[in-house]
Amino acid sequence: MHPVITVFAASPDEGRGLARDMPVRWAMEEVGQRYEVMPVTFVEMKAEAHLARQPFGQIPVFEEGELVLFESGAIVLHIAEAGSGLLPDDASGRARVVAWMFAAVGSIEPVVVQRESAIYLEGDEPWHEERLAIVEDRIADRLGELARALGEADWLVGDFSAADILMVQILRRLEDSSLIELHANLSAYVERGKARPAFQRAFAAQKAFFERRYD
Amino acid sequence: MHPVITVFAASPDEGRGLARDMPVRWAMEEVGQRYEVMPVTFVEMKAEAHLARQPFGQIPVFEEGELVLFESGAIVLHIAEAGSGLLPDDASGRARVVAWMFAAVGSIEPVVVQRESAIYLEGDEPWHEERLAIVEDRIADRLGELARALGEADWLVGDFSAADILMVQILRRLEDSSLIELHANLSAYVERGKARPAFQRAFAAQKAFFERRYD
Repeated sequence: MHPVITVFAASPDEGRGLARDMPVRWAMEEVGQRYEVMPVTFVEMKAEAHLARQPFGQIPVFEEGELVLFESGAIVLHIAEAGSGLLPDDASGRARVVAWMFAAVGSIEPVVVQRESAIYLEGDEPWHEERLAIVEDRIADRLGELARALGEADWLVGDFSAADILMVQILRRLEDSSLIELHANLSAYVERGKARPAFQRAFAAQKAFFERRYD
Repeated sequence: MHPVITVFAASPDEGRGLARDMPVRWAMEEVGQRYEVMPVTFVEMKAEAHLARQPFGQIPVFEEGELVLFESGAIVLHIAEAGSGLLPDDASGRARVVAWMFAAVGSIEPVVVQRESAIYLEGDEPWHEERLAIVEDRIADRLGELARALGEADWLVGDFSAADILMVQILRRLEDSSLIELHANLSAYVERGKARPAFQRAFAAQKAFFERRYD
């Protein structure tokens, strides 16, 4: 039995690999772990059976035997600890990677989500454009800080790690804006992530899954 | 040499223990680890020396010998792994605690931060009240989901854990609203956290530190 990842039955990103199953798929490909996917519809996501596994009615859920996990950051960390190649060998390096994983989820993703909310949920408000400008200023500040921290390095902490999976995926959600392009090193960082064979296999898998639903 | 935690020289919460050094102090008290504090001013926080340790110019930073960590979630996890009593012994329980730590930082805190931004940064905007109502609706949804997941349990995952430190601290940042009170089990959960001797020692320490600055 392979682990099972719960994914959108019909992803709102239409196969662009921006949903949160993507970092989990990518991590699985990096460590060479096969997996199955279980689709849920939007109705199923808010039903009792799913809420018992994912308290916020979202995807992904990761199931492996008795273990049921939610939160893509925690799932990627679990995969990284069980496999090899996604965490440094030394405790300090590992703690630094975990710090950047929390930074991706807690310091970068929230402003990206605010932008998505401003666009998709508040698009009809008369104050939409003003609010979007405030949010994009906050993102620009954070990206400036991130660009500075990355500097000339290829990856956030030494070699490629679980932190890069989370961070690259979050930055990809800004690809419809010009916010990333302002920082050549961040653009190159995202492209470096996307060039990894494991990313490409994960991307192709979610895309094929999305397209199959509409054959 | 004890580990050093970087804290606000003059915390904007005025000693209410809502800043992000508080979960770190609390975790240290739970595992019985002494620590030193190093204050930084708002000017110092944005200076080169601090940015090299905390890429977003925030607090806390945790330093222990050569190890320099940022992100309170990662620091609390590091303390939990080095000490005892904050993580279950079994790998599955531990992974569940990590999932709830990411949930606290990635699924609950962002809406709490949005409310703080709406109040403190957007308070003069003509659309302030409308925006605040939207944000409070989002918080209410999340708290409903959290209350449901907690149910009748005392803590998020079995015994008290590192996840409860993060979650209780985040919920405390809503104490100026009536959002928590709507859920008797969440109110009781926060009070249960605050009743722990380790919480009280940490709270007293940050309060004494704040007050000393103004003697």
